[in-house]
Amino acid sequence: MTSQHAVAEKVTHINGLNVQAAVDTIADLKADKSLAKFQFRAHNKWINGGENRSTIRDFYGAGREDTSRTKPFEFTNGEPPLLLGDNEGANPVEFLLHALAGCVTTTFVLHAMARGITIRELSTELAGNIDLQGLLGLDDSVSPGYEQIRIRLHVKADCTEKELEDLLGYAQQHSPVCNTVCRPVPVVIERVKN
Amino acid sequence: MTSQHAVAEKVTHINGLNVQAAVDTIADLKADKSLAKFQFRAHNKWINGGENRSTIRDFYGAGREDTSRTKPFEFTNGEPPLLLGDNEGANPVEFLLHALAGCVTTTFVLHAMARGITIRELSTELAGNIDLQGLLGLDDSVSPGYEQIRIRLHVKADCTEKELEDLLGYAQQHSPVCNTVCRPVPVVIERVKN
Repeated sequence: MTSQHAVAEKVTHINGLNVQAAVDTIADLKADKSLAKFQFRAHNKWINGGENRSTIRDFYGAGREDTSRTKPFEFTNGEPPLLLGDNEGANPVEFLLHALAGCVTTTFVLHAMARGITIRELSTELAGNIDLQGLLGLDDSVSPGYEQIRIRLHVKADCTEKELEDLLGYAQQHSPVCNTVCRPVPVVIERVKN
Repeated sequence: MTSQHAVAEKVTHINGLNVQAAVDTIADLKADKSLAKFQFRAHNKWINGGENRSTIRDFYGAGREDTSRTKPFEFTNGEPPLLLGDNEGANPVEFLLHALAGCVTTTFVLHAMARGITIRELSTELAGNIDLQGLLGLDDSVSPGYEQIRIRLHVKADCTEKELEDLLGYAQQHSPVCNTVCRPVPVVIERVKN
């Protein structure tokens, strides 16, 4: 009975992701590539000093404006006292690490699902080095951004070592945030004159 | 009396930033460049599906471990239903926009202070385009990251148009997150084997 039940039971989710929804989404995108075009957005307002706040809600994707969020998300950037702030929030370069950690994780979990691999545990530790002479304009030879970001990844999954290494390489290559950091992406700033 | 008082009053803050603290910090960094070396960190744990959570607290800078934060900041990445989630949080590519908005803003405000320019209002609207064929691995010619990020910036400041344009160009070049996005930054992932 137990084994019959197991056979009859349809696998609906792997790693918490709906397998049929993923299959349907990919079929839709293959049929109409324009559905893959997404635009994400944020609005930010300066408060004072190193404190500013973003609201994030709407985005465009799959051929329409998304309306699934009834309330905006709000996030506050701040700075520690050492950087002239009062720890009003994490600072922007720390939020970048949060974005990178999340994106590598979600890309990993998504492609594990696509390969039928169940993830048991997954965590990361990130460290990024910055020389503040760049931000402050004290030395033009010093780049203002991160010099390098290191990610230590811990994972337990129901697959072989080889499958895990392949999956990790694939996730690193296909993570949107990792790709945005590793590759030069143009940022265009336009001043709106009232 | 009023004008005498105004003259006697020392300017301690511009744009909410402590001017003397900034001057002292820069003097320290010039005297010992190693103090400019910072390391920022994040820890992230996968929850389920597209949900994962970061904690951010400690960092290294100015020659020591920072201990100013008594509690860690916590942020949750999620995904909208269209991307197989339940809006558990903003998603990683949206957090990247928040980081970029905050960094451009703080860099702008900081260098305005250094130039003695008072900012009255500052806000930004960000939009970034992504073709999800990249993330999904459906077309190798499509980059998984942002194609481009546009920032519309609204600012009111006590200076000339020319000073404002110069300041904006300088802030864009010296913002650590903007520089990390615009320039290729290496991301090294190391799997920790238990």
